[in-house]
Amino acid sequence: MNPGKPTIALLTDFGTRDPYVAVVKGVLASRTDAAVADLSHEISPFDPFEAAWFLRSAVPWWPEGTIFVCVVDPGVGTSRRILAARAAGKMFLAPDNGLLTFIDCESVVSVENSSMFLPDGSTTFHGRDRFAPVAAALAGGAPLDALGPRVDPESIERLDYSSPVYAHDRAGGTIVSIDRFGNCITDLDAARIGFSPALLRVGEAVITRVERSYREAASGPFIIVGSTGTIEVSVRNGSAAELLHMKRGDRVEVIGS
Amino acid sequence: MNPGKPTIALLTDFGTRDPYVAVVKGVLASRTDAAVADLSHEISPFDPFEAAWFLRSAVPWWPEGTIFVCVVDPGVGTSRRILAARAAGKMFLAPDNGLLTFIDCESVVSVENSSMFLPDGSTTFHGRDRFAPVAAALAGGAPLDALGPRVDPESIERLDYSSPVYAHDRAGGTIVSIDRFGNCITDLDAARIGFSPALLRVGEAVITRVERSYREAASGPFIIVGSTGTIEVSVRNGSAAELLHMKRGDRVEVIGS
Amino acid sequence: MNPGKPTIALLTDFGTRDPYVAVVKGVLASRTDAAVADLSHEISPFDPFEAAWFLRSAVPWWPEGTIFVCVVDPGVGTSRRILAARAAGKMFLAPDNGLLTFIDCESVVSVENSSMFLPDGSTTFHGRDRFAPVAAALAGGAPLDALGPRVDPESIERLDYSSPVYAHDRAGGTIVSIDRFGNCITDLDAARIGFSPALLRVGEAVITRVERSYREAASGPFIIVGSTGTIEVSVRNGSAAELLHMKRGDRVEVIGS
Repeated sequence: MNPGKPTIALLTDFGTRDPYVAVVKGVLASRTDAAVADLSHEISPFDPFEAAWFLRSAVPWWPEGTIFVCVVDPGVGTSRRILAARAAGKMFLAPDNGLLTFIDCESVVSVENSSMFLPDGSTTFHGRDRFAPVAAALAGGAPLDALGPRVDPESIERLDYSSPVYAHDRAGGTIVSIDRFGNCITDLDAARIGFSPALLRVGEAVITRVERSYREAASGPFIIVGSTGTIEVSVRNGSAAELLHMKRGDRVEVIGS
Repeated sequence: MNPGKPTIALLTDFGTRDPYVAVVKGVLASRTDAAVADLSHEISPFDPFEAAWFLRSAVPWWPEGTIFVCVVDPGVGTSRRILAARAAGKMFLAPDNGLLTFIDCESVVSVENSSMFLPDGSTTFHGRDRFAPVAAALAGGAPLDALGPRVDPESIERLDYSSPVYAHDRAGGTIVSIDRFGNCITDLDAARIGFSPALLRVGEAVITRVERSYREAASGPFIIVGSTGTIEVSVRNGSAAELLHMKRGDRVEVIGS
Repeated sequence: MNPGKPTIALLTDFGTRDPYVAVVKGVLASRTDAAVADLSHEISPFDPFEAAWFLRSAVPWWPEGTIFVCVVDPGVGTSRRILAARAAGKMFLAPDNGLLTFIDCESVVSVENSSMFLPDGSTTFHGRDRFAPVAAALAGGAPLDALGPRVDPESIERLDYSSPVYAHDRAGGTIVSIDRFGNCITDLDAARIGFSPALLRVGEAVITRVERSYREAASGPFIIVGSTGTIEVSVRNGSAAELLHMKRGDRVEVIGS
């Protein structure tokens, strides 16, 4: 990982038990000396939302020049497009299925220049046949326009998602992820909330404890500004999701004091 | 990963929860500046077939010079040999337990030059004591013959495996893997089938739908040429293995129209 | 991984499904061209002992100059210190919660120089806000004393752990890990045992078979010197832990013949 050279950062739902990631890395190693970093291969199968939210959380921390290769692609082999996009100096390759919902793309092309693909490609493994060689070409300096025709950034697929609503004394959002620790992560951006949260309501549950760190909390669930800057529901050394039967997609409301 | 420099590619059944992979990487980092890539550490414990099939799927996509270090080694510490092999410009280190069944080895040596091993090695962790330092030596340019005496490639251990049988209107094979998505992957190479598949039989089940992509399929199981070029049984956004109670080792027959 | 350049080696309980590792790697890639190696991200959540024992097993195999970044940190955001330590030419960053219990630290500082942290840091993600930028600074040559004030190595937190007791014909220790294969790993260092083990007692079970390799054992549990040089209880191609209902923390006694 070299600030002077691009890194190719991989995000897939391939898992690591099957050879798919190893195949993609082999094609990359055959075509580029760019460093390759694993973001995650554990996105739930067929779950573009999980991948899109992952990108929203991780991308801001990577340097300009990084090439994000995102293959969560249940529509592989259909007419769905492959997009290449630029946003804030970073490059993205992703199927046009909503993966880039939370990326503010400045320029987008439809990847159609088949001379860049592996010959005799399949209809079932574009990660190997198209994403990997095109990523290697980008790492080698290929301009975006060499990949295919421009596409209106407004035309790309967006996931069905209701943005949070922020009012002066309350805010309404959604649980977008349950993390490994059982933290229930909402999309309510703490920096956008103009009041002191005093109460969070999710389903039947009402949470009124607010904490600054996981460890100092007393027992029971509490509200905290989590790792990615959004409101979370947590319990100390346990799973808030299990305790409160919360799941992704649940609506939450936060009310000020 | 640099086309001009060798990559050491690791395939093990160590998992990543225990320190074994970290130890192997430490020995490598102490002895070579070659890039190290993880193929997988999630091979099922004690399962050389899974590793052998993984290699068959992944190896063709890696560049010449790659050094594959394969440690699925239930016989560690017994008299089983460690093999170093060359095939199509790529190098392999593996215990002689069938891991190289699907690799067409051109030259093979028995790794016995103990001056290349770590001193005071164990009988339980040859990944650390033998595979890692020998891989580092190969990356540094050591010739195959420096590792030990030549071995007849015909003499190396092969897994018990019946190759598929291809006839003019039918082909018989085996399910060799259930992947993360529940796809049932056979060893029937689509390029070897000289007819249009119309029907696949596995146990009591008969599948007559043939598709080109996962997404465009209607509900129910279908036949598709999968990611590694072989016939698969899949269902859209679900697990064919669960739906049809298929498992590795099941015999399949494909019949033409 | 280059003997001439430091590697940053990551050990966390973050898992790889969530974006936390990807965020840490992004901060590192933004600030250093040092190689980044994954030791493990699968430490059990909130389990400093597991991480501490992992370090004990893995660290000796890495070269001088390696920077170990250890983030198993249930106390993030509390007054717990972050430590930077040097031991045998290797560097460590870890919360002061016992992670370094088995590292023989020569010099230790409390990481308090906030000019090295990310601006506007959180109370919930010091892996990103503090560990990563400080690791990048160390990789760039920052001296230990630039990070914060010296701390007495004797003052750092140690985990509650009873060292093994070695006598002339017996030794008493603890099961410190159950590995992926079901091996029950004790802290009894084979090199410290001055007699030939003949019998191991754990709970109600008594094991009297001693083996040199996993494969050559007959059926039933046996004693073996395991991968990390300590006494283990194993069964061939199976899980000793399941067979004998052994778990971490169980006391064991080994008696000589």
